[in-house]
Amino acid sequence: MNAKPVKIARLNANQADFDQHLDKLLAWEGVSDKAVNERVEEIIAAVRAKGDAALIEYTARFDALDVASMADLTLDRARLEQALERISSEQRQALEVSAERVRLYHEKQQQPSWRYTEADGTVLGQQITPLDRVGIYVPGGKASYPSSVLMNAIPAKVAGVPEVVMVVPTPRGEINELVLAAACISGIDRVFTLGGAQAVAALAYGTETVPRVDKIVGPGNIYVATAKRAVFGQVGIDMIAGPSEILVICDGQTDPDWIAMDLFSQAEHDEDAQSILLSPDQAFLDAVQASIDRLLGEMERADMMRISLETRGALIKVDSLEHACELSNRIAPEHLELSVADPDALLPQIRHAGAIFMGRFTPEALGDYCAGPNHVLPTSGTARFSSPLGVYDFQKRSSIIFCSPDGASELGKTASVMARGESLTAHARSAEYRIKN
Amino acid sequence: MNAKPVKIARLNANQADFDQHLDKLLAWEGVSDKAVNERVEEIIAAVRAKGDAALIEYTARFDALDVASMADLTLDRARLEQALERISSEQRQALEVSAERVRLYHEKQQQPSWRYTEADGTVLGQQITPLDRVGIYVPGGKASYPSSVLMNAIPAKVAGVPEVVMVVPTPRGEINELVLAAACISGIDRVFTLGGAQAVAALAYGTETVPRVDKIVGPGNIYVATAKRAVFGQVGIDMIAGPSEILVICDGQTDPDWIAMDLFSQAEHDEDAQSILLSPDQAFLDAVQASIDRLLGEMERADMMRISLETRGALIKVDSLEHACELSNRIAPEHLELSVADPDALLPQIRHAGAIFMGRFTPEALGDYCAGPNHVLPTSGTARFSSPLGVYDFQKRSSIIFCSPDGASELGKTASVMARGESLTAHARSAEYRIKN
Repeated sequence: MNAKPVKIARLNANQADFDQHLDKLLAWEGVSDKAVNERVEEIIAAVRAKGDAALIEYTARFDALDVASMADLTLDRARLEQALERISSEQRQALEVSAERVRLYHEKQQQPSWRYTEADGTVLGQQITPLDRVGIYVPGGKASYPSSVLMNAIPAKVAGVPEVVMVVPTPRGEINELVLAAACISGIDRVFTLGGAQAVAALAYGTETVPRVDKIVGPGNIYVATAKRAVFGQVGIDMIAGPSEILVICDGQTDPDWIAMDLFSQAEHDEDAQSILLSPDQAFLDAVQASIDRLLGEMERADMMRISLETRGALIKVDSLEHACELSNRIAPEHLELSVADPDALLPQIRHAGAIFMGRFTPEALGDYCAGPNHVLPTSGTARFSSPLGVYDFQKRSSIIFCSPDGASELGKTASVMARGESLTAHARSAEYRIKN
Repeated sequence: MNAKPVKIARLNANQADFDQHLDKLLAWEGVSDKAVNERVEEIIAAVRAKGDAALIEYTARFDALDVASMADLTLDRARLEQALERISSEQRQALEVSAERVRLYHEKQQQPSWRYTEADGTVLGQQITPLDRVGIYVPGGKASYPSSVLMNAIPAKVAGVPEVVMVVPTPRGEINELVLAAACISGIDRVFTLGGAQAVAALAYGTETVPRVDKIVGPGNIYVATAKRAVFGQVGIDMIAGPSEILVICDGQTDPDWIAMDLFSQAEHDEDAQSILLSPDQAFLDAVQASIDRLLGEMERADMMRISLETRGALIKVDSLEHACELSNRIAPEHLELSVADPDALLPQIRHAGAIFMGRFTPEALGDYCAGPNHVLPTSGTARFSSPLGVYDFQKRSSIIFCSPDGASELGKTASVMARGESLTAHARSAEYRIKN
């Protein structure tokens, strides 16, 4: 048992200096490290110039893997299937249930191409096509999560991407069989045991062995994040994620142990993870504090969780559930739990949140693994303008314009006036050629 | 008449060194200028620290506008309505026709929120909500285009964004009435006569007068683009556009003057703009070259167009229209014109393009102004993974998960196995609490 009480911030949303407290609590600016930037630029330049040779060299240096050729850094489908055989049948079933549910949910995100024809025969439309090739970055070591493989690869496959390539570092040869099994189940086409900025560079520009992709998704350390930012434009990227966060709104009627554990599930990610609880019930906030103090000592990652809770967590007294929703919109949380009797009554008041977990029986952990929706979500308030990773991230749209001679003649008149108003004479004349006499 | 022939590259897709030629032609990396970066960072820091005072100071310095207060940098709806009265009735009608068509097309991009209920009562869904507030940057001076105002503002309004704020610099007090009239027609809520990095900083962080927005869209010079890149994360941004490009595929049966003018309409944007024609008909390529040489001298921006055509343009002989489509997919053009008898026959072969202009009667210029689809399109090959600006850029999705007690109990088992496989014990226990005994 860990007897020392957890010094999590206790705030009241009506206290005079609450806004400053909240701003400080939420403050997060991704650090951009000059030294990291320079090393990453160097690595990218080397991979562009030397291709596979650079990959082999960096992998020897950073992952302590002495390999003779790229063949040693390549895993084929047979190796992935072997991993599926090696894991326990319980684990295999869990991966398969999760994959199937994720697939079903993401299939609902499919959008059809469309067209419509105007009275004069002009056709307008929007054509949706998948990306040709996508790269998925999977971290090695401790943060190597099979669930991330499913969440990144399945939407790409549902979108119709013909080729999904995965990179995962295997420092000192350590391979995570669960990750390879998840890759097998997700339908990943090729795996390279590469990591760091060199893996990102290889995916963005291609080498003799690693094919150039059109988009790179997946989480990674500061080198990976910096490399993704650097190659953005050359390829698409998903997002640069900040630390994970949860905001729980509770009416005070959920078991306080449950809420404490929901907050813990965020705090165990890393020291910067953020767990905040809002409730109008002061006695309930006290009860959750007591649960936190009592349960923390039982947890494997208690020390890290304590730092996370004490530096970035908060239990906040609000006036009402409506008041809580207002605060939630200001925070725009990655994960929002509405642990209340009637969550549907609150939903219309929620404008910004990555994922909304409704009712007492929907802890974030279910969404992290197997409910179906994606667990890659906008962090640090970016839910104000960003969405969960989805099928739409692996497709793009092309506008279709097919003017009939009559349509072109009419539109040409409008275009001509506007183009001349912008002093773009070639635009005007190009349109005017199509006007009937 | 400009008698000097235009030295546009004449290539054959079957010549031995064609790939190198094409790569060189397409090569474009946005320059990131260190000095510009530093100045932009300085401006952003000043606006964050000093708010309105910094805006007034920078506007005096960069736009030669000596103003007493922010009131002098603010235009209200009445001023926009005045602009609508001041332009010619022909221009007003053209703007209104264009706005209406753009609105109709973008309304088709609306997507509903959805939900589905599983057998055990668990509800999953996707909720779509508009952004709260959007900022639109409109360049001042020569590149101040009323059509850009329509194309950026109307999708935001169709998406349901309650407040759209426009910034437009007015150096030395020069105001473009057409731009203000377009703002009026588009339903822009507020206008500030601000420009440069200071305008971007004000929109991203807010000042006493300028409200903080959730996303910034619209084109700008190197300072604006650098500032947008710098504030990305704090707010959403649309894209950092490269020079505009057109790829025309022609079967040789369109009037060569028409095709020459379509290429000109791209080349008149700026010296870096790119115009490429692919045809299997060598005689037609010669005819277009002759049209270019004959027509260029008539054009107002002939000198700039010549530089664009001679440094970045090309007339390329291909084997067949299918061969042309293959090359087009490699280029992933912003604008693709299929100037052929049966464009629908080629369409299934086109995988990447921002907008596809079909048939001889659909020059790009019609799409630039009034066909309906957006003219903000992915440049420099980014159509491989990006889409035209659309209603979806002004909305975001939130995942909805509402587990029934039975659903939570079942899902909890799967989540528990997966969480323990990832050594995330709090996740596991949070899920296990919801498993029925």
